[in-house]
Amino acid sequence: MRFSLTSPTSTDGVTEQSFTLGEIPGVLFTPRGATGPRPLILMGHGGGQHKKAPGVLAGAHRFAAEGGFAVVAIDAPNHGDRPKDERFLRFAGDMRARMAAGDDPAELLATMHDLLAEQTVADWQAVLTAIQELDHVGGGPVGYWGVSMGCGLGVPLLAAEPRIRAAVLGLLGVHGLAASAARVTAPVRFLLQWDDTRVSREQALALFDALGSADKTLHANPGDHGGIPAHETDDALRFFARHLREAAAA
Amino acid sequence: MRFSLTSPTSTDGVTEQSFTLGEIPGVLFTPRGATGPRPLILMGHGGGQHKKAPGVLAGAHRFAAEGGFAVVAIDAPNHGDRPKDERFLRFAGDMRARMAAGDDPAELLATMHDLLAEQTVADWQAVLTAIQELDHVGGGPVGYWGVSMGCGLGVPLLAAEPRIRAAVLGLLGVHGLAASAARVTAPVRFLLQWDDTRVSREQALALFDALGSADKTLHANPGDHGGIPAHETDDALRFFARHLREAAAA
Repeated sequence: MRFSLTSPTSTDGVTEQSFTLGEIPGVLFTPRGATGPRPLILMGHGGGQHKKAPGVLAGAHRFAAEGGFAVVAIDAPNHGDRPKDERFLRFAGDMRARMAAGDDPAELLATMHDLLAEQTVADWQAVLTAIQELDHVGGGPVGYWGVSMGCGLGVPLLAAEPRIRAAVLGLLGVHGLAASAARVTAPVRFLLQWDDTRVSREQALALFDALGSADKTLHANPGDHGGIPAHETDDALRFFARHLREAAAA
Repeated sequence: MRFSLTSPTSTDGVTEQSFTLGEIPGVLFTPRGATGPRPLILMGHGGGQHKKAPGVLAGAHRFAAEGGFAVVAIDAPNHGDRPKDERFLRFAGDMRARMAAGDDPAELLATMHDLLAEQTVADWQAVLTAIQELDHVGGGPVGYWGVSMGCGLGVPLLAAEPRIRAAVLGLLGVHGLAASAARVTAPVRFLLQWDDTRVSREQALALFDALGSADKTLHANPGDHGGIPAHETDDALRFFARHLREAAAA
């Protein structure tokens, strides 16, 4: 696949470079002036969002500026700058109608994630290989951050990809994910919003329970789906620093 | 009440001073050579344990050495160096027999904590006042750390005591605590062991749910009752540093 990287722009100590790998549009964030290898964090956005959604952008900047990490975000299939295929558009329309009619959104979201998972896993694997060939990223340890749809697509990725050594997941229930969750072995921080109106508490606890990782911690905070408190970003930074440093030393 | 403090002994940068306040035996931990006021952490031990149980001692040393905090631990009524009264001995014997006969341990433990709570709250309030009169402790912000029985007695303390500004609790279910938990307003870190054979997961989640605090975070880790991972002590240190510093600044 053809890998094409734009010239860098920097703000607040972080350099952003847009890229395309084949049909996959992405952004690479590195500390300004970075040279040499460093741990890499892949960030998966939420449903209906894209590679530069506010939550992704804010996290990526902190991970790069404060943690010294390289961070890469890509548009999921049918999201952001990518074309929407007919099957996806049909399903999305159908999903809205069925949710309006009172069907269980968890089942519908699981079907949606399932529709995107295979392509997303292949996309991430190709992007990971290409990005690690850059001199200022290199072949260091890799982490994954993704909540909500970013978790629904991250769990199959973690199940398939041994290069990922630590992950922050959450804001999603177990629907459709039990089998792949059981194959996850990397250390996981799992974020749950205690008053999430989109994800059932019980189903989210069941997804945490299903994760095969021996080292996993659930962090539950009051508030709705979008309300992860700022101290969890501090914690994610320390979590990645600890595990990716350990992986680099091993 | 008469307050009597022994001469200090120091190990690994931490000074320990045993004390008695009336009939309450306690230990004060401070950073070696400490002068002037500092935040204070009260540590409540588990059932059948005492003020210098290994978990308390290890936490107290880290809080003093790494956080610069003063830390105080006391023997709960009928524990450690305190005399055991007849009512307690009768209940403890009865409890063992009923647990052997298959009665719900959660109900029995709640009754036990209830038996001790009123005296424990009064003890802590008197100790807090006396300890804060010492020059190298002073009237700074106060935190509480206690899991298992230390949580069962800590929740009524937090409900009664506005001087406590942050607490680490956990390893206990909601039995007998719903009303006092609802009156807790201080920020709380709540520790849950996902495979706790002594405390039901559901009941522990219900105690987290019942806490009135707007700022509360549940941390759940795999493992049994005694297996809280070391990274939670790192986290508790940062949690107290953040909240007690904020309280000091306000």
